[in-house]
Amino acid sequence: MEKFTRNQRISAITKILIENPNKIINLNRFTEMFNAAKSTVSEDLIAIKEILLKLSLGKIETIPGAAGGVRYIGGVSEEESLRFAEELCMILKDRERIIPGNFLYVTDLMFNPDVISKAGKILASSFNNKGVNYVVTVETKGIPLAYEVAKMLGVQLVVVRRENKVTEGPTVSINYVSGSTNRIQNMTLSKRTINKGSNCIFIDDFMKAGGTALGIMNLLKEFESNLVGIGVLIDNIEMDRKLVDNYVSIIEFEGLDGEDNAILNVSKKIKM
Amino acid sequence: MEKFTRNQRISAITKILIENPNKIINLNRFTEMFNAAKSTVSEDLIAIKEILLKLSLGKIETIPGAAGGVRYIGGVSEEESLRFAEELCMILKDRERIIPGNFLYVTDLMFNPDVISKAGKILASSFNNKGVNYVVTVETKGIPLAYEVAKMLGVQLVVVRRENKVTEGPTVSINYVSGSTNRIQNMTLSKRTINKGSNCIFIDDFMKAGGTALGIMNLLKEFESNLVGIGVLIDNIEMDRKLVDNYVSIIEFEGLDGEDNAILNVSKKIKM
Repeated sequence: MEKFTRNQRISAITKILIENPNKIINLNRFTEMFNAAKSTVSEDLIAIKEILLKLSLGKIETIPGAAGGVRYIGGVSEEESLRFAEELCMILKDRERIIPGNFLYVTDLMFNPDVISKAGKILASSFNNKGVNYVVTVETKGIPLAYEVAKMLGVQLVVVRRENKVTEGPTVSINYVSGSTNRIQNMTLSKRTINKGSNCIFIDDFMKAGGTALGIMNLLKEFESNLVGIGVLIDNIEMDRKLVDNYVSIIEFEGLDGEDNAILNVSKKIKM
Repeated sequence: MEKFTRNQRISAITKILIENPNKIINLNRFTEMFNAAKSTVSEDLIAIKEILLKLSLGKIETIPGAAGGVRYIGGVSEEESLRFAEELCMILKDRERIIPGNFLYVTDLMFNPDVISKAGKILASSFNNKGVNYVVTVETKGIPLAYEVAKMLGVQLVVVRRENKVTEGPTVSINYVSGSTNRIQNMTLSKRTINKGSNCIFIDDFMKAGGTALGIMNLLKEFESNLVGIGVLIDNIEMDRKLVDNYVSIIEFEGLDGEDNAILNVSKKIKM
């Protein structure tokens, strides 16, 4: 059977770990793949562990026991998070982004894989040790971000819909009041999506008053499950009274200044 | 300045390449990061290139010239694609998935990062050399899949909405006829999303008659852009006359048999 060099094994193992964040991979998978002894693979893993730590590219955890193995936990250095948030502020300050009604056009960023994969890693790093079972979002703009967070945490994504669909089977619906517009809105979710007693986090693109987050909290009660965290890309801090506290965000939007420039800053709540 | 071993460099370079599919990375980034000579980094890259090829884990391309560098192109072996499609068929054959009206419940899979990251890689591999500028989808269920394809191709995702939103600025709307239900539906897209003369592919969860794909083709005409490919996870082949041809799919759904079991097979159109 074919033999592999240490360099080759290290490259392939790195790839497999990075592509399966937060999933425990048994060492047998690697020993079989490379026809190598467990001790050899263990040494490979030590080298990978060291370099990821050294460059703040995440970490490798070892889980002992028969069901054990190793898993990659995504990470972003504080320096990189700040640089990313600063760059995002610069991009968003473009006056072309201001839409009648003083909205900020962010759709392109929410659907830009470069931006969203970094933002997802930053948000996920706040929830690594919370025993999260599901990442929940409401359609539509926050879906890629919530998907990236779910992928980094190695869990299922759940997307709450605005209306009932025939392809969902039995659903649970609730009404909630949007905190910023005071309008009654609807949320609906298929009964089969969430198991009783689960820990969920809510991820979205934008937070205004927090009405949607509060709605999600109430919807999760119908599933006998808990909301254990909230993360958003942009926190609108024009509203000084929020309906929820305890959330993380990457940047803060404070409306427009006297000259119609958007006021944007790196969030004070970038980490939990 | 700190020095790194070859093993360490290889692990870090692998990670950076994998996380930036289809993006050209200049060798200077690596020489600076590791305080190493260009020749050293080139040798590292040769080792990575070899092992990815050997294990069918994708490939590394070298782009010559001043703006050149290297880029990772995702790949899945034919064997792995088939195994994935077969596993998916098994999962979907579960009778609990049949919903009144003979729909198949697929929402959990469309929002499962393990499933979607593999499916995205398989679909993206059909469009690597098509000069794709945008990946387009219609909200909601296909968004994570389209996002993964966009990420693998290193391009922007565009999500067509069902209705107008105030946060989108000026939009273009069209009506189209759903091929399977014969109902008139609406699609709307912000004018700023797509540049004139772009090449787009359409990615979705399910194809029935292909009415949505035809609608997208017409919508793109309003942006003076072209639809150069279509990819779906599940092709409903109960409809023998499709409104579009030339698409790829991963599995085929042929309705229910006499005993109400879903008929599912690996698609004959899994590659272009």
